[in-house]
Amino acid sequence: MNNAIRVNGATRLYAIVGDPVVQVRSPEVYCERFAQAGINAVLVAAQVSPANFDVAVPGLMALGNLDGLLVTAPFKARMASLAQRLGSAAACIGAVNALRRESDGSWSGDMFDGAGFVRGIERKGRRLQGRRVLLFGAGGAGSAIACALLVAGVASIRIVNPEAEKTEALVAALRRTFAQADVQAAGDDRSGFDMVVNASPVGMKPDDGLPGPLGPLSPEVLVGDVVVSEAPTAIIREAVAHGSPWVNGHDMHSGQIEAIMAFFHPDAQRAASAA
Amino acid sequence: MNNAIRVNGATRLYAIVGDPVVQVRSPEVYCERFAQAGINAVLVAAQVSPANFDVAVPGLMALGNLDGLLVTAPFKARMASLAQRLGSAAACIGAVNALRRESDGSWSGDMFDGAGFVRGIERKGRRLQGRRVLLFGAGGAGSAIACALLVAGVASIRIVNPEAEKTEALVAALRRTFAQADVQAAGDDRSGFDMVVNASPVGMKPDDGLPGPLGPLSPEVLVGDVVVSEAPTAIIREAVAHGSPWVNGHDMHSGQIEAIMAFFHPDAQRAASAA
Repeated sequence: MNNAIRVNGATRLYAIVGDPVVQVRSPEVYCERFAQAGINAVLVAAQVSPANFDVAVPGLMALGNLDGLLVTAPFKARMASLAQRLGSAAACIGAVNALRRESDGSWSGDMFDGAGFVRGIERKGRRLQGRRVLLFGAGGAGSAIACALLVAGVASIRIVNPEAEKTEALVAALRRTFAQADVQAAGDDRSGFDMVVNASPVGMKPDDGLPGPLGPLSPEVLVGDVVVSEAPTAIIREAVAHGSPWVNGHDMHSGQIEAIMAFFHPDAQRAASAA
Repeated sequence: MNNAIRVNGATRLYAIVGDPVVQVRSPEVYCERFAQAGINAVLVAAQVSPANFDVAVPGLMALGNLDGLLVTAPFKARMASLAQRLGSAAACIGAVNALRRESDGSWSGDMFDGAGFVRGIERKGRRLQGRRVLLFGAGGAGSAIACALLVAGVASIRIVNPEAEKTEALVAALRRTFAQADVQAAGDDRSGFDMVVNASPVGMKPDDGLPGPLGPLSPEVLVGDVVVSEAPTAIIREAVAHGSPWVNGHDMHSGQIEAIMAFFHPDAQRAASAA
């Protein structure tokens, strides 16, 4: 990856805020994107200890040439309170992973974990409207994806999670934001779904199997997996075996970068898409 | 200048704080120095409006991976209050242009405008100890140079400034910090000096002459000028004509970068000097 960049007095600043940050890939990824788009900007990692959050983050947001922030653990929920405006996914989950400064100086935040997943699917030419979704996982990734799928117009979501109370909490949160949403805990019957999504950690270890019974797969059933791995996970192998279209963690990750670049820099993103 | 750099999650941060910042050269200069020294660090410009100073700057200083700050107008005096420890030049002037985080988390600040001048002279192999100095200018540059010259052991300083009250204020400040210092306003007699320094703005315009009568020049008289210009200034032309050794604004600027790199990164600077 070639993200050789130049920095001068006119360089605009972005930062990813978290603790720790040494492992984050965002500086390399976004510096390269900015360079490709001809934008004089850098994204740096900003290590903020939880005890310093209330001093450090408002301080960053007070810099006149800082245009946006990414947020990683453990601050996705805490950061939501610093935005004057939240997108619907962020409002539903109560957490953000990106903020931008608007032209009036106020800050907007949104959660792109799920939007990245949706964009990854759309990139592969698949519709989401009207899908009946079986979703494994009710944690951070599952919540973000459930919100984004409802925003994208799926018909229903049935949720599988080992901890029933997490499922109930997510169902309640989704119903608060999407009053008409058809969402509930999944039953034992796994038929009738035309989309199956793994947002659980199952698949992260090489010898992991499926996150649970998937129900019947076919070319009409869209399969998604949040796990980023070199070798195909069990659920993606099942999708391939049954001719189901699929998106994996890499697609979701690329989709999220695109979605966040569009959020940070709508004009540059349009130019890149047209090129 | 090739300051192509890479930024990742482990990159250490430095910033130059000022308003405005688009014109500052420090990001290019220090990013290149860090890269040359094999240090994974960037220096970015941080634009801070005076109204946001008390939020933005403590916020930057609360970032766990921010190791140092440079300071430019209008904050050199205001920033001094944020350091727990001041070098003698900073204490004398009441202003800093660089701060670093110590291993115990506290902040030290110092003013390198004058130290850069001193280092520029030492680089040319000239001693300062015992010099009798005629100094033109009692503003920011003149104050910083007077402090640094006293730290370096000059015997006396006589000051010329069009505004007598500025001279008196500088003399008083120097005497507060350097109780034994032989400093006062210059009289009409310009003999007996073995160092003449221009720290006034005279020479910045191409047709400027001398800042005032210099007294007799010779190979024993060291001449300094803070003005950064392509063509030699009148005072440097006089030095050349009389065989006086001299340093100009470029030497001072290079000396300052070296002094600040040594302040930020003593080990790297030693390695670079040894190479």
